[in-house]
Amino acid sequence: MPAYQYVHDVMLRDCETSGIVFLPRYFEMVHTVIENWLDEALDWPMSQIQGSDALTLPFVNISAEFSAPSRLGDRLTWRLSVRELRRSSIWVELVATTGAETRASITGTLVLSEGVALRTRRWPDPIAERVKDYLVTPNGNIRNKVAE
Amino acid sequence: MPAYQYVHDVMLRDCETSGIVFLPRYFEMVHTVIENWLDEALDWPMSQIQGSDALTLPFVNISAEFSAPSRLGDRLTWRLSVRELRRSSIWVELVATTGAETRASITGTLVLSEGVALRTRRWPDPIAERVKDYLVTPNGNIRNKVAE
Amino acid sequence: MPAYQYVHDVMLRDCETSGIVFLPRYFEMVHTVIENWLDEALDWPMSQIQGSDALTLPFVNISAEFSAPSRLGDRLTWRLSVRELRRSSIWVELVATTGAETRASITGTLVLSEGVALRTRRWPDPIAERVKDYLVTPNGNIRNKVAE
Amino acid sequence: MPAYQYVHDVMLRDCETSGIVFLPRYFEMVHTVIENWLDEALDWPMSQIQGSDALTLPFVNISAEFSAPSRLGDRLTWRLSVRELRRSSIWVELVATTGAETRASITGTLVLSEGVALRTRRWPDPIAERVKDYLVTPNGNIRNKVAE
Repeated sequence: MPAYQYVHDVMLRDCETSGIVFLPRYFEMVHTVIENWLDEALDWPMSQIQGSDALTLPFVNISAEFSAPSRLGDRLTWRLSVRELRRSSIWVELVATTGAETRASITGTLVLSEGVALRTRRWPDPIAERVKDYLVTPNGNIRNKVAE
Repeated sequence: MPAYQYVHDVMLRDCETSGIVFLPRYFEMVHTVIENWLDEALDWPMSQIQGSDALTLPFVNISAEFSAPSRLGDRLTWRLSVRELRRSSIWVELVATTGAETRASITGTLVLSEGVALRTRRWPDPIAERVKDYLVTPNGNIRNKVAE
Repeated sequence: MPAYQYVHDVMLRDCETSGIVFLPRYFEMVHTVIENWLDEALDWPMSQIQGSDALTLPFVNISAEFSAPSRLGDRLTWRLSVRELRRSSIWVELVATTGAETRASITGTLVLSEGVALRTRRWPDPIAERVKDYLVTPNGNIRNKVAE
Repeated sequence: MPAYQYVHDVMLRDCETSGIVFLPRYFEMVHTVIENWLDEALDWPMSQIQGSDALTLPFVNISAEFSAPSRLGDRLTWRLSVRELRRSSIWVELVATTGAETRASITGTLVLSEGVALRTRRWPDPIAERVKDYLVTPNGNIRNKVAE
């Protein structure tokens, strides 16, 4: 499976008093993985998206399962892949594991929008091309959708 | 519908550079609403749950829809209700609105666990009784489940 | 002493695994106190400052002493006062106490700036007038400085 | 000058709506640098400090100057050095630069404490030895202090 990989060691800022990772901090990690993927894999850093491109890329939905808690010092390996590439949105999947154990499974939809009005915007073609490398099942249907 | 209500004005710490609320900050708000509900409505503050009771109450899953973006200064009214009360877990629903507009709809499952081992733990009876005031459809089935 | 007061109960999001408030969370509280003071006491909410006024109000320095740790559930009473009001900046002091015990003493300088260029900007007169109610030692010298 | 170096690219989670880094996020970066230094340079990860060693290492004071704002996408190079090593505390200095420009200069005191009671605790000798590599002016006086 094609996947972008990002390693994060759980730090004090991620944890609460019971010793486990605090819910909102998982979503900070999710965003960190996505911003690094945009920059390193798609060559489209968030500073350009929100800067010269005057776009924004917010989540419109997200869903998460935490099958086991994570603790201070745990090394989480995040893997990002793309479930579907649509005209102006993208359905991503992120899984965090420590060794053989899955800690978090997250899917969500990011929508490309014009900065101020937040109207949806079609993906730039070169970006859409690069995204396809991370599709879980890159098949004709999805390509056709993008091409429509 | 029975619901616990909490008002939050969107502040700088909640927003990112495009001017809208940043995904992880919504989940900080969710936790703030829940901790205030535990304290004010159930008379069971998190400092007691994690302190003298040596328990913890993490999310094992959560799902969110963001139907419209929120911005600096928006007054979000959060409403928390309970979809189901189970032996050691609780299925909560939180909705954030500004005026007539829904901004976020979130459901998730919190599991009561023993602090260190994170083994599940049955709800204390007086807490379960108070939770029932917030059930979306408080009927016999749910009461039976709790009583088993 | 004239002071704006704000009460915050320490929540999970504020604490780290050793059970005490995590350093950066104190500064989130500081900003929350300041944004509430701007809104409630000066009638100048941050959404207006950064919105229609196209200004920004960042810290250029800050200094903090933590004389005792704070824990989950502690009720912190924050008091904000103004040490000095200058042409385009303000020197604020914030103290957090629990009962008779001081937990944090913080002083810092906020500079009023034009949004994009971050050039300094003179305080609007009506705002400067309201700020004076919070001056620790409101005397002629300070008034003269403002009037220059 | 001996210094531990850590590079951080400013991300969405660090910034507020005016486009610059939000004050509390600088202190999250400070803690991230320190925790990585403890782990990589001193071979003493926070998970061990708070875990098997049952210690904690909170700041008792901190002071910061922000000579220029930082923005989304800026690459900040943090440098950590040690101004003084005392019996149970340490006075650290962190400077963040982008190219030739200094963005933040921060000094603060961390105190080694026993986990629950927060009583101060002498540095373990092997840790103190490693810390000396990062002393700004490693001279006889400081070594004598440690040896006392």
